[in-house]
Amino acid sequence: MDSAEDLNYPQILFQYNHGFFFSKTMFTACELGVFDLLLESEEPLSSDVIAGRLGTSTTGMERLLDTCVGLKLLRVELNSEGVFYRNTELSNLYLAKASPKSLYHNMMYYSKTVYLCWHYLTDAVREGKNQYERAFGISSKDLFGAVYRSEEEMIKFMYGLNEIWSICGRDVIAAFDLSPFTHIYDLGGCAGGLAQECISLYPNSTVTIYDLPKVAQVAKERFIPPEEHRIMFHEGDFFKDPVPEADLYILARILHDWPDDKCMHLLEKIHKVCKPGGGVLVVETLLNEDKSGPLDTQVYSLNMLVQAEGKEKTSTEYSNLLRAAGFKEVQVKKTGKLYDAILGKK
Amino acid sequence: MDSAEDLNYPQILFQYNHGFFFSKTMFTACELGVFDLLLESEEPLSSDVIAGRLGTSTTGMERLLDTCVGLKLLRVELNSEGVFYRNTELSNLYLAKASPKSLYHNMMYYSKTVYLCWHYLTDAVREGKNQYERAFGISSKDLFGAVYRSEEEMIKFMYGLNEIWSICGRDVIAAFDLSPFTHIYDLGGCAGGLAQECISLYPNSTVTIYDLPKVAQVAKERFIPPEEHRIMFHEGDFFKDPVPEADLYILARILHDWPDDKCMHLLEKIHKVCKPGGGVLVVETLLNEDKSGPLDTQVYSLNMLVQAEGKEKTSTEYSNLLRAAGFKEVQVKKTGKLYDAILGKK
Repeated sequence: MDSAEDLNYPQILFQYNHGFFFSKTMFTACELGVFDLLLESEEPLSSDVIAGRLGTSTTGMERLLDTCVGLKLLRVELNSEGVFYRNTELSNLYLAKASPKSLYHNMMYYSKTVYLCWHYLTDAVREGKNQYERAFGISSKDLFGAVYRSEEEMIKFMYGLNEIWSICGRDVIAAFDLSPFTHIYDLGGCAGGLAQECISLYPNSTVTIYDLPKVAQVAKERFIPPEEHRIMFHEGDFFKDPVPEADLYILARILHDWPDDKCMHLLEKIHKVCKPGGGVLVVETLLNEDKSGPLDTQVYSLNMLVQAEGKEKTSTEYSNLLRAAGFKEVQVKKTGKLYDAILGKK
Repeated sequence: MDSAEDLNYPQILFQYNHGFFFSKTMFTACELGVFDLLLESEEPLSSDVIAGRLGTSTTGMERLLDTCVGLKLLRVELNSEGVFYRNTELSNLYLAKASPKSLYHNMMYYSKTVYLCWHYLTDAVREGKNQYERAFGISSKDLFGAVYRSEEEMIKFMYGLNEIWSICGRDVIAAFDLSPFTHIYDLGGCAGGLAQECISLYPNSTVTIYDLPKVAQVAKERFIPPEEHRIMFHEGDFFKDPVPEADLYILARILHDWPDDKCMHLLEKIHKVCKPGGGVLVVETLLNEDKSGPLDTQVYSLNMLVQAEGKEKTSTEYSNLLRAAGFKEVQVKKTGKLYDAILGKK
């Protein structure tokens, strides 16, 4: 039952209504460099000084800062000389670019790309397909041709993904004891965030990132230090090209992009070349069995509609896919963060 | 201090990040008519039936419905025949078009217009001005020329505003005893939502809606029944054209649109023609004196940057404006809802 108070005044609807205000306030403060300036300055700054240093209007900056205070992304101090703003610990850690845990690129990807795709959610639900054409005027017949439609867009995506693994990667790699698997292929391993977690946690492992040539090249140039000999690259399209033999295949945020038949095809192909006793580690966000939540996973599944060709699934749905492809022993571990882990053994 | 748990995993940042997902999910369910169909049907429906009746994909509709369940906008029932969805009481009351308290048009205005303007928040903060040009390719030199850039856009705005007054109007009109004021002018009274509340609460009052000719004409045709002789119209631009004598002038969500000098000019003009003992009722959302909140008002103030030429203000800022224009006795009443009331007497 809704409470009488809710029915008299629909506070929660206004909260949802204002949701995009909150997103964009945080994104814009990141984009303009508010958190970077306040991290560097070491002392609280006035809105005039911040506007001056960042080259913005004062009338806009003052309101942006006050709204960040309301969102608890900044703190405000009043003294006899005026009003001064400083970062919270959370903002220093996750919103300033210089922090190793920064989510800056992820925020920019959401702000510039995902936000605009979602302007066409109604069309996506009507048509049952992604909206790159309406949002950016580009065909999505080749999905990753659309996702990586420019080098700039690809690099933003790669940085953003790595940032998510800097927060959630350790938990999914530690969810199972992967030490028996020394020769690991990370299919769609992108910028190598998970590969790095893997070799750091399992000293005997080597990881080969199997990704499209242009992705692998940028990963090599920008993300993986050349002296890191335990991370290698394999350039290709693992749907079309052969997949080599290995002990373990990682599929992190891959299956959710594609329709079930394409997932099955890939899993069967992997099963065929997987060493006996080897396996596949699927990393995805998991829906409750009755799909009643979690809310974050529900919206991610809608996002797969708006931006890809697949959807988020339940543990049982993934387990059934893995079993149907021939992986007999399937275990699921929830991490409590955004991404969970499923291990299927041959 | 941020808690150690927050610092380890920035749940609140993901929540802000996902804010626009929540907004658009609600907007799209409204736009597609989910809540209307479920209100009419009188029995819970499956996602297949809902998709069929509303002419959408099933893969998109299923996910949209499940996300609405996560947002508590729908309830789900499982029985031996499958999964069925129904409205919550809140959705019947505020999201179905047929409800007298429906927020449908307001949602559509936010979804189609405000959401896209906010895609350019960063530019708005940089430049200190609204973003109709970037969002819709139209000049905003004449602000309400941009806001009312088509009859369709104007009518959406008018319905949306009336819906807000259907929820918040009674409280602001009842905040002070306005019964001494019988001859009332509502400047920018638009579709007449507040005028209706006024004549209903104060049986001796008449209200003249003073608005641009095209607004007044649509209000007359669509919103105010012709037999309602206590509501009249005055066509014009109250910044440029004369304002007639009256007992009370209502300025509801007007001052927040404009820079202070333009507000002062209008208030002085009103003070000049106001009857002795008469006054002005300002209806706005009020910032805390130190601007630390409320969050809804902070984002509305940013919205005035993105969509108008003014900003939201504190009680003291409005009181000072009213006193400087000559209104001596100024009282403020907070309603606990989005909009508050300030009465200045001559």
